[in-house]
Amino acid sequence: MNQSQSNVQNNTLLVLIPGLGAVGTTFLAGVFAHIRHGRPIVGSISQNYKVSDPSGQPNPRNFTPLSEHLGLPSLSNLAFAAWDITPENAYESAKNAGVLTPQDLEMVREDLETIEPMPGVFISDYVRRLDPSYVKKGQSRSQWVDALRADIREQKAKHGTDRAVMVWCASTERFLDPEPVHQSLAAFEQGLADNDLSIAPSQMYAYAALMEGVPMANGAPNLTLEIPALQELALQQGLPIAGKDFKTGQTFMKTLLAPGLKAKLLGVQGWFSTNILGNKDGLVLDEPDNFRTKEHSKLESLHSIFEAERYPELYGDLHHTVRINYYPPRGDSKEGWDNIDIVGWMGYPMQIKINFLCKDSILAAPIVLDLALLLDWAHGQGWSGVQEWMSFYFKDPHAQEQAVHDLMQQHGTLLSTLGVE
Amino acid sequence: MNQSQSNVQNNTLLVLIPGLGAVGTTFLAGVFAHIRHGRPIVGSISQNYKVSDPSGQPNPRNFTPLSEHLGLPSLSNLAFAAWDITPENAYESAKNAGVLTPQDLEMVREDLETIEPMPGVFISDYVRRLDPSYVKKGQSRSQWVDALRADIREQKAKHGTDRAVMVWCASTERFLDPEPVHQSLAAFEQGLADNDLSIAPSQMYAYAALMEGVPMANGAPNLTLEIPALQELALQQGLPIAGKDFKTGQTFMKTLLAPGLKAKLLGVQGWFSTNILGNKDGLVLDEPDNFRTKEHSKLESLHSIFEAERYPELYGDLHHTVRINYYPPRGDSKEGWDNIDIVGWMGYPMQIKINFLCKDSILAAPIVLDLALLLDWAHGQGWSGVQEWMSFYFKDPHAQEQAVHDLMQQHGTLLSTLGVE
Amino acid sequence: MNQSQSNVQNNTLLVLIPGLGAVGTTFLAGVFAHIRHGRPIVGSISQNYKVSDPSGQPNPRNFTPLSEHLGLPSLSNLAFAAWDITPENAYESAKNAGVLTPQDLEMVREDLETIEPMPGVFISDYVRRLDPSYVKKGQSRSQWVDALRADIREQKAKHGTDRAVMVWCASTERFLDPEPVHQSLAAFEQGLADNDLSIAPSQMYAYAALMEGVPMANGAPNLTLEIPALQELALQQGLPIAGKDFKTGQTFMKTLLAPGLKAKLLGVQGWFSTNILGNKDGLVLDEPDNFRTKEHSKLESLHSIFEAERYPELYGDLHHTVRINYYPPRGDSKEGWDNIDIVGWMGYPMQIKINFLCKDSILAAPIVLDLALLLDWAHGQGWSGVQEWMSFYFKDPHAQEQAVHDLMQQHGTLLSTLGVE
Amino acid sequence: MNQSQSNVQNNTLLVLIPGLGAVGTTFLAGVFAHIRHGRPIVGSISQNYKVSDPSGQPNPRNFTPLSEHLGLPSLSNLAFAAWDITPENAYESAKNAGVLTPQDLEMVREDLETIEPMPGVFISDYVRRLDPSYVKKGQSRSQWVDALRADIREQKAKHGTDRAVMVWCASTERFLDPEPVHQSLAAFEQGLADNDLSIAPSQMYAYAALMEGVPMANGAPNLTLEIPALQELALQQGLPIAGKDFKTGQTFMKTLLAPGLKAKLLGVQGWFSTNILGNKDGLVLDEPDNFRTKEHSKLESLHSIFEAERYPELYGDLHHTVRINYYPPRGDSKEGWDNIDIVGWMGYPMQIKINFLCKDSILAAPIVLDLALLLDWAHGQGWSGVQEWMSFYFKDPHAQEQAVHDLMQQHGTLLSTLGVE
Repeated sequence: MNQSQSNVQNNTLLVLIPGLGAVGTTFLAGVFAHIRHGRPIVGSISQNYKVSDPSGQPNPRNFTPLSEHLGLPSLSNLAFAAWDITPENAYESAKNAGVLTPQDLEMVREDLETIEPMPGVFISDYVRRLDPSYVKKGQSRSQWVDALRADIREQKAKHGTDRAVMVWCASTERFLDPEPVHQSLAAFEQGLADNDLSIAPSQMYAYAALMEGVPMANGAPNLTLEIPALQELALQQGLPIAGKDFKTGQTFMKTLLAPGLKAKLLGVQGWFSTNILGNKDGLVLDEPDNFRTKEHSKLESLHSIFEAERYPELYGDLHHTVRINYYPPRGDSKEGWDNIDIVGWMGYPMQIKINFLCKDSILAAPIVLDLALLLDWAHGQGWSGVQEWMSFYFKDPHAQEQAVHDLMQQHGTLLSTLGVE
Repeated sequence: MNQSQSNVQNNTLLVLIPGLGAVGTTFLAGVFAHIRHGRPIVGSISQNYKVSDPSGQPNPRNFTPLSEHLGLPSLSNLAFAAWDITPENAYESAKNAGVLTPQDLEMVREDLETIEPMPGVFISDYVRRLDPSYVKKGQSRSQWVDALRADIREQKAKHGTDRAVMVWCASTERFLDPEPVHQSLAAFEQGLADNDLSIAPSQMYAYAALMEGVPMANGAPNLTLEIPALQELALQQGLPIAGKDFKTGQTFMKTLLAPGLKAKLLGVQGWFSTNILGNKDGLVLDEPDNFRTKEHSKLESLHSIFEAERYPELYGDLHHTVRINYYPPRGDSKEGWDNIDIVGWMGYPMQIKINFLCKDSILAAPIVLDLALLLDWAHGQGWSGVQEWMSFYFKDPHAQEQAVHDLMQQHGTLLSTLGVE
Repeated sequence: MNQSQSNVQNNTLLVLIPGLGAVGTTFLAGVFAHIRHGRPIVGSISQNYKVSDPSGQPNPRNFTPLSEHLGLPSLSNLAFAAWDITPENAYESAKNAGVLTPQDLEMVREDLETIEPMPGVFISDYVRRLDPSYVKKGQSRSQWVDALRADIREQKAKHGTDRAVMVWCASTERFLDPEPVHQSLAAFEQGLADNDLSIAPSQMYAYAALMEGVPMANGAPNLTLEIPALQELALQQGLPIAGKDFKTGQTFMKTLLAPGLKAKLLGVQGWFSTNILGNKDGLVLDEPDNFRTKEHSKLESLHSIFEAERYPELYGDLHHTVRINYYPPRGDSKEGWDNIDIVGWMGYPMQIKINFLCKDSILAAPIVLDLALLLDWAHGQGWSGVQEWMSFYFKDPHAQEQAVHDLMQQHGTLLSTLGVE
Repeated sequence: MNQSQSNVQNNTLLVLIPGLGAVGTTFLAGVFAHIRHGRPIVGSISQNYKVSDPSGQPNPRNFTPLSEHLGLPSLSNLAFAAWDITPENAYESAKNAGVLTPQDLEMVREDLETIEPMPGVFISDYVRRLDPSYVKKGQSRSQWVDALRADIREQKAKHGTDRAVMVWCASTERFLDPEPVHQSLAAFEQGLADNDLSIAPSQMYAYAALMEGVPMANGAPNLTLEIPALQELALQQGLPIAGKDFKTGQTFMKTLLAPGLKAKLLGVQGWFSTNILGNKDGLVLDEPDNFRTKEHSKLESLHSIFEAERYPELYGDLHHTVRINYYPPRGDSKEGWDNIDIVGWMGYPMQIKINFLCKDSILAAPIVLDLALLLDWAHGQGWSGVQEWMSFYFKDPHAQEQAVHDLMQQHGTLLSTLGVE
């Protein structure tokens, strides 16, 4: 057990959420609906996976929930705090997001209203399409970092716990190339002191979390935790980190299908993916610089799975295109449409088309829950630095060398790391 | 090395094909096009999979084709013989099937014309929609079996080899429940003597093959090799057998997608699958009794993958429907349309729709090739009886206990049995 | 002004609804939501169409609603009565139907609860899949007809009006060939006296309505108003009638698209239509005899539009298939999937696929409203017998000779009959 | 009969084609395949429409082809000449285009090889993505116009006819706003003399054609014939003109569907249209400036059909998005995918999705044929200036005031102008 955990006064796990938008509020509503009204949790490995009792027959009584098997905190032992750049509480923000039905929101209204965000750090150059009304005071990165650290300490005190995790649920920042300031902890800290413009808001949150002994996961495609400076800090602090970009709809399908096509050694000439969505995420990604961040995250997966250098005759000519279209009528109900041009015996062409009518936040919410609980569990195991075994949850997983994108392979690694398969 | 292989006079592997229709002729055309014109083989694990050289960097020169790694016969060492219930040679039959372009057929016309079928065994009660014009003489099952065995011996002699495999590529027979006559080899042989009506044509081919020392795979959903009588015979003769029902389009997708949904522990309330196809297969399956055979093969997979007894809250209410519609405008170009109703966080519904424009025979042909080569390889390993590790190729895999349907799991087993992953 | 209208005591138009199911209750909820809460009416020509003021510029103030232009009753002047074979009131029935959100239902709960059905006439041979619990007493068709007529008189008295229309919103009855008993009013009345089994329940409702001076429209594909007996009665009573089978989702699209393909003189080789739906309608149509009724109604349209005898080279080989699948996960949210195989220049094939995620009752409800108001209007014009100009609303329109199926042609006829285009 | 026609030496109609690409060569191949090999013409109103004999019964013998009814030239009386910016003849160009099968191309190879293009006028600023290798000499617009006029005179002489029409089949030019130089014939001619950069290549072709007494139609979305200067010239020369932008796949569907939704007065909140195509057209439209030209042409139609100023409550919030994606695997086989968000009774949302697997040139070729024949016919009628009645063929029809976009309304106007319905 490491130093930070020795200070734990109670069992509470504090979940710190930068970004109290559609994803964050849907996550919160689902947890409260479960605790207060027994609404079932769906889509979460920590809550839904069942470990089989090797001695018994396969009937429901012979299975143990994973959370119990691993000794994870129960949902009623979670506490929450969030930052945002508008002042609405979680109820109001969830209402604006339009993900959940009014009935479901009313059911957890009181709980949601207790979650009032702390003002966020906002730099308009990083997210141009949003208009903040509630931002942290201060003129420089060092001031903002200090303020975030003070926020974290205050929240820990308020909830009487030193046990916390942070999951980034805010918007995608603009594309950012790694700069010298990101290359070492020393350079980064100097950059904070110099207010270096290449330090993104998400990196300040990450730095603050790690300095306060809080593991972090990044749910957006920003350049955040994968910079050497923060990885160095995570190892130094003995803290696990994981990222990046929640794997929800289209990439989930892509990293499920592509390995199957490759298993059959069918050729693939083209993969065209388009998305329509009308939530704030769509608005932000309508800005080319922010889409560039996302696109990078989305394109990598096929390249890795198909191994074109091993199979140039099957995958060497693959045209892979990803488009995201802001389309307000749809709200949070994202729709993905994929067309895949495959090639079979004698070179004959065939087509697969996938139309996925999904709800982005509904798919992301259980990932937030799993990341919070499993990061904390990994911390308890004494693990630190990048947690590659959590790549199942990410579009663009952090890895020491080659990231694994194949969903079922990621799933196998996840379960075996948890010791359950 | 077993007895039957000690008689091999040359390297030739004779591939025996009951059913010279769309699948059989597409397989043959692709093999000839490769041998004569270098047309690439696509979609075959035996030909396309590359074993990596562990010492080297991943560049094309450091990979060895699986066929070479395992020492499989080269395609030019294959010989072919077939049975059918119409007298057209493989060129004419391929032309009628309409799978390949006229140009591609002309390219291999001479080779295809050399493949003239032997008359088949046909019992109209088993396949009502077809109208045979070229059937084996004889009045009873024992006469037909003798004639098939004589055919096999004659073909071996003609090609100067004792090394052969049989792959069933003919139509789906009507639904058949296991009867006492199928329960032991003794009962089965008595049934042949008594011309028992419960012995299906495919079972006569299988019996003849096994008696002549020929391994067999079943590409259709008929009740054939899974009856105790024939499994007993396979073990007695030291012959590997495998089945059943080539896993081509829709079930391939289903057994790829379903494990991914389950990995994420998303609920599934409904899976509606419909198919339109206009080939002879579609015509045969328009007969309810033959569709029943197919339906059984198609429904099993989801049940097995989702484990509803382990996850009743997620998969206990799954409505799974499969429809096949005979639709002549489409010819061999089968089209599948699937709608999947899934459930996520807080019970919110989402939908996935898959439209697969595939060509059934293009997907089946490389499976025929792999089965022929790998059954022969297994025979060379001295393995006999049901080859569960080949379940990757089948919609409804034979298994001693619980069949595995998960495509990627089947793929892992296939590769590890072949010693390459 | 005709005789029946001279007795009108007040302005109320009584709408009589056999079948208080998904369609009927959705219609009622929408009307009440409009009257009480100003919820907009959508999809209704009588309410939404605007007649342009020829003198003015096209701005909203220069348009007159059609209902005002024609002097139709306002929605608050409508009264309602219904029959059903289960006793639930309109609120309970709407709740079971699951079309509308709980919130919307609560909004009109009080109004819906006032609509309690009268017991219906049920003959299980006509609708096998339903299980009635609330049926009219009586042993014979003449008794049932008398009871229905008494119901109508009682409702008129209760609402203080003699002005009424009937719109059939109940389930599809089994397929019924015209029999001698349907060929004349005399034969029909003799059949009632003899309890002739070929007289369907819907025909008894129609007879009762017409005898009581009530115009009627048929929203299901049953053989009802198109029999000579009832047409004779309608003319004799001076009453307009119209049918049959509400044109809602797939046929609406079909009769819109097919004329366009024909306008371009593109060939059509195949049209495959499948539907999945989980409401009571789907359950009833899962019975082959009831589906046969529906199928007949659905297949006719393409035949009529494409004129294969005029264009045999383009439409002579059309394969048209319609399937309806009962699929409970979907409830009232019907989903249609159409594949159309078209042929262009030089005979090259192309494909159109339509996926329509619709809600059957949402599309049917405004048709009920329009039919009620326009039948009453036609009655006021002194028109009687089959109203062909209302064919816009029907899948299988009644016509003296050749029915028109082309949607836009039907629309033109509708508007010109109403004098507004 | 007007002046230009009095000089006709023979019956030949010369069809002049700027742009010998996919559309032009597909058109030519189909005409030759018909003349030489009897391959049926499909998709052409001039060739496929049949006028019914009012006296007779509807059987094929009682119908007269429209071409015969109107006295149009037979296809064997057509002659052809083309311009292009690469020197390949029509056979080579068709082969590169990849629209037709090799077999079909061989069938008409000799005829296609006779069509060798004249060098084209190319200004790279107007079409940036193409790389010309075969362009007209000259330094200025007046030189190029003179050369085009000389080409036209030479081709007329070569084919011994003075009867000609021009149909623009070349690429989309960049977006061009109307400038003063386009506002009158005098200004335009001054602009030619001054080599005004705002005069586009297509406008030079149009000017040359009209000066030589040749009617013209514009198949691309460029600003060409709709400028006052050229309309003035057309009237002065007594020549009919028509445009613009062939209505082929997605807009054909859109202008067919949208009027149907409006007929039912269903609300429409969103219409998202995306296209993937891999031909030269796709490459050109990948350039934002050229796409802007196309987008303008594509967006207008819905606005016109839905009349949002008349129905603000139904169509006032419509989000209409059109995307075109260059996707090489698909070649000429364009694929359109539309999602339409509609609103029905009580405001309930529904969705329609259309997937159109079409071949752009296959849909455009019969339009080229019809425009050539019908423009010539209109010329024979003595009609000049913009031919609004031909709007059926165009995405963005020229009109004096308000263009009609509704497909079936355009169709009615076309037929009634031709006197056949």
